[in-house]
Amino acid sequence: MKITKASIEAAAIRIAPYIHNTPIMTCKSINELYGLDLYFKCENFQKIGAFKIRGGMNASLQLTKAQLEKGVATHSSGNHAQALAFASKMLGIKAYIVMPESSPQVKVNAVRGYGAEVTICASNQAARESTLQDIVDKTGATFIHPYDNDEVITGQATCVKEIIEAMPDIEIVVTPVGGGGLLSGTCLGAHYFKPGLKVYAGEPEGAADAVLSIQSGKVEKAPFVNTIADGLLTTLSERTLEIIQAHVADILLVSEDEIKAALRLVYERMKIIIEPSCAVPLAAVLKNANLFKGKKVGIILTGGNVDLSKFKDWF
Amino acid sequence: MKITKASIEAAAIRIAPYIHNTPIMTCKSINELYGLDLYFKCENFQKIGAFKIRGGMNASLQLTKAQLEKGVATHSSGNHAQALAFASKMLGIKAYIVMPESSPQVKVNAVRGYGAEVTICASNQAARESTLQDIVDKTGATFIHPYDNDEVITGQATCVKEIIEAMPDIEIVVTPVGGGGLLSGTCLGAHYFKPGLKVYAGEPEGAADAVLSIQSGKVEKAPFVNTIADGLLTTLSERTLEIIQAHVADILLVSEDEIKAALRLVYERMKIIIEPSCAVPLAAVLKNANLFKGKKVGIILTGGNVDLSKFKDWF
Repeated sequence: MKITKASIEAAAIRIAPYIHNTPIMTCKSINELYGLDLYFKCENFQKIGAFKIRGGMNASLQLTKAQLEKGVATHSSGNHAQALAFASKMLGIKAYIVMPESSPQVKVNAVRGYGAEVTICASNQAARESTLQDIVDKTGATFIHPYDNDEVITGQATCVKEIIEAMPDIEIVVTPVGGGGLLSGTCLGAHYFKPGLKVYAGEPEGAADAVLSIQSGKVEKAPFVNTIADGLLTTLSERTLEIIQAHVADILLVSEDEIKAALRLVYERMKIIIEPSCAVPLAAVLKNANLFKGKKVGIILTGGNVDLSKFKDWF
Repeated sequence: MKITKASIEAAAIRIAPYIHNTPIMTCKSINELYGLDLYFKCENFQKIGAFKIRGGMNASLQLTKAQLEKGVATHSSGNHAQALAFASKMLGIKAYIVMPESSPQVKVNAVRGYGAEVTICASNQAARESTLQDIVDKTGATFIHPYDNDEVITGQATCVKEIIEAMPDIEIVVTPVGGGGLLSGTCLGAHYFKPGLKVYAGEPEGAADAVLSIQSGKVEKAPFVNTIADGLLTTLSERTLEIIQAHVADILLVSEDEIKAALRLVYERMKIIIEPSCAVPLAAVLKNANLFKGKKVGIILTGGNVDLSKFKDWF
């Protein structure tokens, strides 16, 4: 295993100048309503509005001088695109971002705003990969995968490390799971910095690939994909599956109605903007309250980059 | 003048066990976009989701034993209703709240949720006042006006006191103005705790009564009322006008488009939920940036109690 306690400690020091140690919020009214003791790690207040800057920054900071000169590349319609674009701006290097033509203009603008070079491609996986490959071939830029990358996972692991440092008595941490970068980083961070800290994940029924993959022991696709949690549509990789399988306590499925109810709860009670993906672990906790009652439970709110025009579909 | 430095200091100590000393947030991207140095006092994270608990709690805590036994009463469709209901719950006393039939069910439920007795009346000022008078006559409850009340204004003054304590080098504070409770409290707090600290207010063009009242020196009505800033529809009182006129640096008008743009900016960049009324002082600062450039400017975000179904009208 390349990801060690020391490598996560080094990552935390490496990325510290570029990120926020985000606040942990509590909400008395949610706790009273459900008889729970919840602590929300607010990565929606993170730089670029999402935890992804941790992994993107950690990976970018470890490029060699020769690699830095040629820049970084990735395909993403979401927060990883912004993370790499921001990291590149910080380091004064080039970033080539392939974005599907379905990407909201506001996200394309945000990535361009950091000075990245955006290439628009057709909205399918093959087009994304071939367009990226062309760019890498032409420029020699280093491809940084959004989650199937040890340095990225190591960076994401710094989030749970901060939770443990702020709350040494935390007993459970819950994250969403998409490609598994954050979840596998959280599993390893818990394992190294607080053995015994349980890690659960929430996953939408409408993107239920991780729960199947854990059962079968190989990377599975979701039987169907239909969820407002648009950050969680990707499948695991061999790398993230192996880590998650070794460490996760359980992956809990939640319905769209449960996700929307949890999203509304956060907006109404906590007065903060979160992406629908963040509501998934909260929905999982509320649905399985018996697992969490009497425990200090950390929930990672992964990001807050939402297209405000979507509100009308959610509330 | 009944409101003194000592009375504000006493109020701060009196209400401290019941309220949050709310965080002050900054937003690098908004500062960079506009070349400003802004500090947001987040009363949207306050108990009941709004600053109004300061005044409601301060007034309630000073009732005599005989008054406490008979409870408190007010008419309000908004945050003052919740403030008095919450204060009453804390003190174990009765609260009688008259709410117009146009009040969103979610607000009526919130007030009832604190154990207050809600009376629904027709949606006009005469009905609100006569219904309240009937209740006061029958129950002997003490009417606590949302802003035309020295103890309420004194409570609201504790907010700027917290800003000054957290940021002794703050140079300007900007609030919205509706009935003028927060603005007059802020003026007095600045006057007593940091003489020289300038206080500005933002007011919607669609509820432009305060700016007219300052010009004429008497309480004026707005020429027309049409704004999404539904917390700012009321006129000043003689009491708030007198204080504001003596101390305010200026009242700056903003259009509905400017309010909506500022609201969007906070939602997109700061990832927090605020009421449209809070966007009014920010809109005023952005519109008159020349007045504020190079200064440390505090903006009071007054509350975060929004009906999520309204989002579709704003964004």
